[in-house]
Amino acid sequence: MLGLGNSIGTPAEGISAEAIVVRDFAELDRLGERVRGKIVVYNAPFVNYGATVLYRLQGASRAARYGAVAALVRSITPVSLQTPHTGAMSYDPNQPKIPVAAITIEVAEFLQRMNDRGDHPTLKLKMEAKFLPDAESANVIAELRGSERPDEIVLIGGHFDSWDVGQGAHDDGGGVIVAWETIRLLRELGLKPRRTIRAVLYTNEENGTRGGNAYRDAHRAEIAKHIFAIESDSGVYRPEGFGLANTAPLQVRSNLQEIAKLLAGIAADNIAENGGGSDIGPLMRDGVVGASLDVDGSHYFDIHHTQADTLDKVNPRELALCVATMAVMAYTVADIPANLAAAER
Amino acid sequence: MLGLGNSIGTPAEGISAEAIVVRDFAELDRLGERVRGKIVVYNAPFVNYGATVLYRLQGASRAARYGAVAALVRSITPVSLQTPHTGAMSYDPNQPKIPVAAITIEVAEFLQRMNDRGDHPTLKLKMEAKFLPDAESANVIAELRGSERPDEIVLIGGHFDSWDVGQGAHDDGGGVIVAWETIRLLRELGLKPRRTIRAVLYTNEENGTRGGNAYRDAHRAEIAKHIFAIESDSGVYRPEGFGLANTAPLQVRSNLQEIAKLLAGIAADNIAENGGGSDIGPLMRDGVVGASLDVDGSHYFDIHHTQADTLDKVNPRELALCVATMAVMAYTVADIPANLAAAER
Repeated sequence: MLGLGNSIGTPAEGISAEAIVVRDFAELDRLGERVRGKIVVYNAPFVNYGATVLYRLQGASRAARYGAVAALVRSITPVSLQTPHTGAMSYDPNQPKIPVAAITIEVAEFLQRMNDRGDHPTLKLKMEAKFLPDAESANVIAELRGSERPDEIVLIGGHFDSWDVGQGAHDDGGGVIVAWETIRLLRELGLKPRRTIRAVLYTNEENGTRGGNAYRDAHRAEIAKHIFAIESDSGVYRPEGFGLANTAPLQVRSNLQEIAKLLAGIAADNIAENGGGSDIGPLMRDGVVGASLDVDGSHYFDIHHTQADTLDKVNPRELALCVATMAVMAYTVADIPANLAAAER
Repeated sequence: MLGLGNSIGTPAEGISAEAIVVRDFAELDRLGERVRGKIVVYNAPFVNYGATVLYRLQGASRAARYGAVAALVRSITPVSLQTPHTGAMSYDPNQPKIPVAAITIEVAEFLQRMNDRGDHPTLKLKMEAKFLPDAESANVIAELRGSERPDEIVLIGGHFDSWDVGQGAHDDGGGVIVAWETIRLLRELGLKPRRTIRAVLYTNEENGTRGGNAYRDAHRAEIAKHIFAIESDSGVYRPEGFGLANTAPLQVRSNLQEIAKLLAGIAADNIAENGGGSDIGPLMRDGVVGASLDVDGSHYFDIHHTQADTLDKVNPRELALCVATMAVMAYTVADIPANLAAAER
């Protein structure tokens, strides 16, 4: 057995072919038809998630285009203790749907060393992933009703599904707890904002965003009443502030920066760019202003989509700070007299 | 399946019993007969290897003494990505030989949380380790013969067996390469010391030190001619110097400190205490002065005895510095006119 992997695409049983290792798509393109009949191994070092995850997302179809029979993708992570990281991928409908799996950094580097000395070992794939029929699931919603404008909504949320290789403690159990605890904390403090704060615990983020789409579909009539939507899906490490969607009105950004000053005492007052999230993506595409809870990201991808995403990785104080950060922001946006996008407040 | 483990003692097939978790031996002793018929789970956090490995070494028999039917031991490591660490254990001949396995930190903490709320889940053990019949093996020995006193020996070495869960890159492939490369480097430099430098690549360190014992047995006649023995078995991280056995004569320590000044330029000039090693242990017990190559130990136990002890964890420059450190020390001790234990040099 060559090493540890997680199958992420069409499973394979008994495919045997030579391995050919590439460090990036450019190298694949240079090889072109020379990968025909082979298993393409992507050994792309981690740069950042957005850049490196392309090998998981697109690697299979880009290799299939040149006739590869399967693909293996180095796990999208900066560190490894023989730790495979699974995750979503997608097939180009114009290419054969070849099997693909994630392998560990260690196995990818091992194959790279062999490749670099001219060895192309024959790999036999035994991949056990399979698609089961859909099962019924549901979003879970709780809210703190607003005192003056209960129809206006500040949505906070995360997703309670996870890749089944681990517990999904950071991705995204922690995000769900942040939303839940925000409501509980405000109730415990006896605080009742003018607008409604709605906690949405989404189902099925990882495998198709069906929870996010279903929420949007079920709440079409009140989408325009969603003042703001904040998603926590970056783990529950020390909070740094919020990432605001780049499409948000400038006035919203400056208002959030003003509100965030309340969080300076715990250094969670940064309003960054590129915010949002996949659960609230459908709402955002319908015009809702979206943001993400931003946290220290230095260790999230150590455990992301692995067996090691377990509760012992969650620091209780950091989780509590995430709750405090979310509660202060959600309460304030829900309670300010003027709309978040208004200049006068 | 509860989690990942490595079986390290007598294997079990089908043992089912309630888990009871203890943080240390004191807690076990307080429970006493209450563990009868149960599986004792040791969840001792890593303090240092010497202190914490006692749970792996003695845990089974100390639990068996109170009637436990099996034991599980939290892996001896400061960090984990669901990473089980295997290793040696020993049975007290006066107690039943109950099965024992290492589990990951994550699984141990999971069981601890259940235990602390009064839950004692029934665990079913499926352990696949087994003892195979002995097979013939051999130490591999190479030497650079001394120019003036070839019968006097400076021994350098490591072991080329490893726990089969990984490649054994740091434990102890690196140590073997340090010895090998030291000889090669000195030859390449055309250096020929007065005494012989002998590189010994020991077999079977992990499972009984039979290589070390066999060397001692085969070389009984020349043991007194072994001036010095240095083992590298702490990984090949950045070298810090050497650990000298506490039994070494004071004059040896002061002479080594003098020689080590040659290594100040690469900060490998520290002569520490508690040196030695298991391969050279039999020689040391027969009076040979022993030492260890000391390196930065901050990451060795992250990967020790795991699937993650692979070549990608070896930094080529740090390995080269280890070779340089060993070569300078071995050559100088082999070449100084007076004996290492002599005051006049």
